[in-house]
Amino acid sequence: MRTQSPQGSRAALLRQAMVSVAPRLKLVETFIAKELQAGPEPIQQTGSYVFSAGGKRLRPTLLLLASRLVGYQGEKDVRYAALIEMLHTATLVHDDIIDHASLRRGRASANSRWGNQLTVLVGDWLYTRSMELALEVDDLEIMRLLSRATMQMIEGEVLGLSLKGRTDITVEQYLEIARRKTAELFAAACAIPALFSPAFAAFQSILADYGRNLGLCFQIVDDLLDLTGDQDQLGKPVFSDLREGKLTLPLILALPKLAPEQRRAVAEVAREGSFTALRPQELQEWLVQAGALAEARDVALSFGEKAATLASQLPPGFERDALAAAPWFVLERDH
Amino acid sequence: MRTQSPQGSRAALLRQAMVSVAPRLKLVETFIAKELQAGPEPIQQTGSYVFSAGGKRLRPTLLLLASRLVGYQGEKDVRYAALIEMLHTATLVHDDIIDHASLRRGRASANSRWGNQLTVLVGDWLYTRSMELALEVDDLEIMRLLSRATMQMIEGEVLGLSLKGRTDITVEQYLEIARRKTAELFAAACAIPALFSPAFAAFQSILADYGRNLGLCFQIVDDLLDLTGDQDQLGKPVFSDLREGKLTLPLILALPKLAPEQRRAVAEVAREGSFTALRPQELQEWLVQAGALAEARDVALSFGEKAATLASQLPPGFERDALAAAPWFVLERDH
Repeated sequence: MRTQSPQGSRAALLRQAMVSVAPRLKLVETFIAKELQAGPEPIQQTGSYVFSAGGKRLRPTLLLLASRLVGYQGEKDVRYAALIEMLHTATLVHDDIIDHASLRRGRASANSRWGNQLTVLVGDWLYTRSMELALEVDDLEIMRLLSRATMQMIEGEVLGLSLKGRTDITVEQYLEIARRKTAELFAAACAIPALFSPAFAAFQSILADYGRNLGLCFQIVDDLLDLTGDQDQLGKPVFSDLREGKLTLPLILALPKLAPEQRRAVAEVAREGSFTALRPQELQEWLVQAGALAEARDVALSFGEKAATLASQLPPGFERDALAAAPWFVLERDH
Repeated sequence: MRTQSPQGSRAALLRQAMVSVAPRLKLVETFIAKELQAGPEPIQQTGSYVFSAGGKRLRPTLLLLASRLVGYQGEKDVRYAALIEMLHTATLVHDDIIDHASLRRGRASANSRWGNQLTVLVGDWLYTRSMELALEVDDLEIMRLLSRATMQMIEGEVLGLSLKGRTDITVEQYLEIARRKTAELFAAACAIPALFSPAFAAFQSILADYGRNLGLCFQIVDDLLDLTGDQDQLGKPVFSDLREGKLTLPLILALPKLAPEQRRAVAEVAREGSFTALRPQELQEWLVQAGALAEARDVALSFGEKAATLASQLPPGFERDALAAAPWFVLERDH
């Protein structure tokens, strides 16, 4: 049961804001659907499948809110919001190949349904189509920002892959991967509207910093949910990161506090990719006992608070309040 | 033994031209090596491996020649030549995942050496880095041309994949795939220098058409070599296309001339992915008897001649003669 806590009312505020951008978000969906329909038939099919799986559309929502916040009145927000979601989806489908994921958002992932072959091409198509959409508008600065964010995501994945199976990963390395893989696209989504007109330029750096901190908060919460969530709600198995050899923040924080034989058991799961030496529930208990879940949540909270503080430096109004409330929406989510 | 035929002397002319652009081609290699070195460590490693396997560097050579032909004196030719080769390599590494290829240029392909995971990211990194390299120069028109060519390659692959295993593919479908998958990047490589200055713009369409026809010639020869070549020289198994379920021009031309039981045997190889019902030598004999190799070679020749005719409309000089000779280099190659 949810009491009307300050966090609760802040999240309610963001939900209201989401309702207020809903008509434009609908235009974003239509934009993406039209793009997919213009592609070759196998792209139409796989693309619609991937996008119809839903997802929170958090990045386009942030872009639409930031766009209203700076006072933009035109139509470019819809295009770039669609583009950001397409870029994000391109990384998701390639990541599923990288992670051998068989489930995504509660359904068969694209790679397990159509095989790696078509899935590689769907990702390539989405990347390239995003670039073309940006090129149709003639804004080199936004293009640079987008390709920089794309490169950060790819290099973040490379870095993550190179540390797979390693149990000596540091908090700094974890945060570096999270920043590249996730936070830079949040930063781009929030900062792009500031480039719609020179008049908005003053907001660019605050909006980017806001997005980056919110993105870090989001990624840590995501990683926490993978350890504590419920398979049905998550739409993928619990501990899927560890099964893939990826140690996330709570585990990194817990390891030094565990007994040597516990550490060995965790390392074995990371190496083997399955829970044989250990049951998931056992590991969850160890994480609770080590205080690692609470500690990781505090780190997420501190990034969220940083984002809220940055938002408070933006021009007052409904959109600012919504952006300031967004971290609590992220912190409250259960899937 | 090679007699000094007109073809032979034309190919010799192109080889001379390649010697003349060799110093700039060396700058291209250095440019690419420097780019890779700036990437994260796993990209450095896999990237160097992929590029050090060699390859003919035909696309950058064409760009460098076209650049001299239009009279360009600056340094952009090296950057775009490197970019074109990086784009080409991005498609190669992703294609190897698509084709489950285990050999490329006589060595283990990137995916069989490092797995699909890193290989997906190496391709993504090369695509994105190419885009960034183009963005550093501020030429939107060249960027559009490049992203269009990239999209054509990806959609060509999608189309090819959707027709895998099908024995009812038409000559038109085959040529459409070859145009998208191969010829459009040749067209881009040749046409880009015409965009270096408005003074060169008059050459853009001839250079693009020239490149497109040369690219079609190149792809048909490539497909012929897959049927007739030698594994050691090709660096990959003979009939690798058919083993992947891909029917290329000679087979498409031969099928209607084969007996029903022969057609069934070919269809079985395409479906099964291996030569069990049939020996490769047998199929080679059928292709010879049906006149399909000669017929496909004639089609390649006609595209090559079209390219040479287009080249003859360019300003006279050493570079024009080299471009006009290029089809014969392509037609003569044995790997």
